[in-house]
Amino acid sequence: MQSDKAQQTHISFDELHALLARIFARHGTSNEVAAILASNCASAQRDGADSHGIFRIPGYVATLQSGWVDGKAVPQVTDAAPGFIAVDAKNGFAQPALAAARALLVEKARANGIALLAIHNSHHFAALWPDVEPFAREGLVALSFVNSMACVVPHGGKRALFGTNPIAFAAPRAGHEPLVFDLATSAIANGDVQIAAREGRMLPEGYGVDRDGRPTCDPRAILDGGALLPFGGYKGSALSMMVELLAAALTGGNFSFDFDWSGHPGAQTPRTGQLLIVIDPSKGAGSNFAARTELLVQQMQDAGQPRQPGDRRYRERAQSARAGIAVDSEELARLRQLAEAA
Amino acid sequence: MQSDKAQQTHISFDELHALLARIFARHGTSNEVAAILASNCASAQRDGADSHGIFRIPGYVATLQSGWVDGKAVPQVTDAAPGFIAVDAKNGFAQPALAAARALLVEKARANGIALLAIHNSHHFAALWPDVEPFAREGLVALSFVNSMACVVPHGGKRALFGTNPIAFAAPRAGHEPLVFDLATSAIANGDVQIAAREGRMLPEGYGVDRDGRPTCDPRAILDGGALLPFGGYKGSALSMMVELLAAALTGGNFSFDFDWSGHPGAQTPRTGQLLIVIDPSKGAGSNFAARTELLVQQMQDAGQPRQPGDRRYRERAQSARAGIAVDSEELARLRQLAEAA
Repeated sequence: MQSDKAQQTHISFDELHALLARIFARHGTSNEVAAILASNCASAQRDGADSHGIFRIPGYVATLQSGWVDGKAVPQVTDAAPGFIAVDAKNGFAQPALAAARALLVEKARANGIALLAIHNSHHFAALWPDVEPFAREGLVALSFVNSMACVVPHGGKRALFGTNPIAFAAPRAGHEPLVFDLATSAIANGDVQIAAREGRMLPEGYGVDRDGRPTCDPRAILDGGALLPFGGYKGSALSMMVELLAAALTGGNFSFDFDWSGHPGAQTPRTGQLLIVIDPSKGAGSNFAARTELLVQQMQDAGQPRQPGDRRYRERAQSARAGIAVDSEELARLRQLAEAA
Repeated sequence: MQSDKAQQTHISFDELHALLARIFARHGTSNEVAAILASNCASAQRDGADSHGIFRIPGYVATLQSGWVDGKAVPQVTDAAPGFIAVDAKNGFAQPALAAARALLVEKARANGIALLAIHNSHHFAALWPDVEPFAREGLVALSFVNSMACVVPHGGKRALFGTNPIAFAAPRAGHEPLVFDLATSAIANGDVQIAAREGRMLPEGYGVDRDGRPTCDPRAILDGGALLPFGGYKGSALSMMVELLAAALTGGNFSFDFDWSGHPGAQTPRTGQLLIVIDPSKGAGSNFAARTELLVQQMQDAGQPRQPGDRRYRERAQSARAGIAVDSEELARLRQLAEAA
């Protein structure tokens, strides 16, 4: 993903969105699903979140072609309780499942003070922050958890069991963009291991194990049958376990080790589950929640924290709004070919 | 807290509970509050959680004597929404506030699928796992967040701002004790820094900074105007920030840097807030949640993870049930003096 600035071109969000939607639809999704996935992917590219931008398109296409995911699935929403929505994504993507239940989720959160959306039988192959940020724009607090595919060894163990299992959080901030983070509970992303291997760099200690479960700093040993470690030792491992329980056990989805895609060569999207929790802070004693968030951020800045969660994305987003979204010219050409191919 | 086994004596839970309740009541709490705090503290001692057992009693006593906390406070419970309870602890301890709202919280979680308890104006000076474990015994999933006092530097910063800000989680597990963790988002507990300083040991890298915000491995430099670091770098720091927002901003409580106890020498309990989220997993597509938890634990064991969260506590608990709760003889004598003094 390291691209030479000279080879970059810039296109508008709408143009990129239309191109990506065409690619999805050409490879077997419904138009509704194509629009949702294109929006997610174009947003990541716009915000400089390269590993979840157009970089992901070949993986989406390969997965659709393999028949592993149903790009035309229509999610089935069940109003399970006043604060609890369950969605069967019907082996489709998680984002359309969220979209199908989103209005009801907001309604329930405002009526009850808190509400939960449990998605199962779903594929999540994208960044998690786009799922939570919009709730904060409506004054709500949102948390989300997604499990993925077995590539992380539990603390002290030898075999991969957990996914990279991200946790995302969004909160409104008075007078500013929402405060949003999206962090994998693995010590490092798989993509960064691949980049280190390509560049012949060793990794810091504590990022991975080799095929025998022994600690290694060699990215090739991690990729060659090894696995990642959780971030932060036993604490990160406990949080990753929690993500498995919330995103899979609670929703009725697969654990990260549960599914078998061996009959679908090319499949890259984990078939698991996702949980969202949305809270209406106006119900609390702190009716000035967004102002309190802003005070905390100010204090973090005063304490010398150089960057707030989400800062880089917002900066890139503003840059993209001014100059268009930066895309590698060769990659753009390949995308245009994919938009024509079936 | 390193005690010579030869100096230990063993007493029953009921005897320890009665002794601790007497101490609390003698130092200004109501009988109701005394019973609740005694139960919490005796449970920690029983489970080998030494740093939250009788070790805490002098801190409780000093705080009560300073007038910083109201040991007779009667929490005010507000049924804010079908899934949202707010409690003003009235400058009392957090545990009686939870006790006052607990039955309603369970009722709301079962009716709505998820419910939230926001406690503010409260003091939490205990382990967090005792607050969540009982929900899992009733088949519910529970999460809790408490902020404390400024002693942790945000990632990349120089000044302490966050508390040790623990996150606790509990889930039912078929045929076994609940799966429970309680982890500080700081890299190390304050008590462990004190022990290292006493023993003249250096700490590993990444645990703390000195008074100028520079990384240090010297526990004395951390204690002498320095501060702790979050666990796991920027990720742990983001989670600690989230705890401030959930436990303080959302509840209407103080941030960890908000309160001023300088007028109350001896005060040790942070006056902040606490959030609990309780989920009824039977509302999800996964009606067999506890069996799925058990499967995950089995897989963690098969993957070579040597110990599950909570294992040590349950082992110590069983040992205490057989042989009585181990207490240092001299400490027990001091407790008995405190129970008579006012």
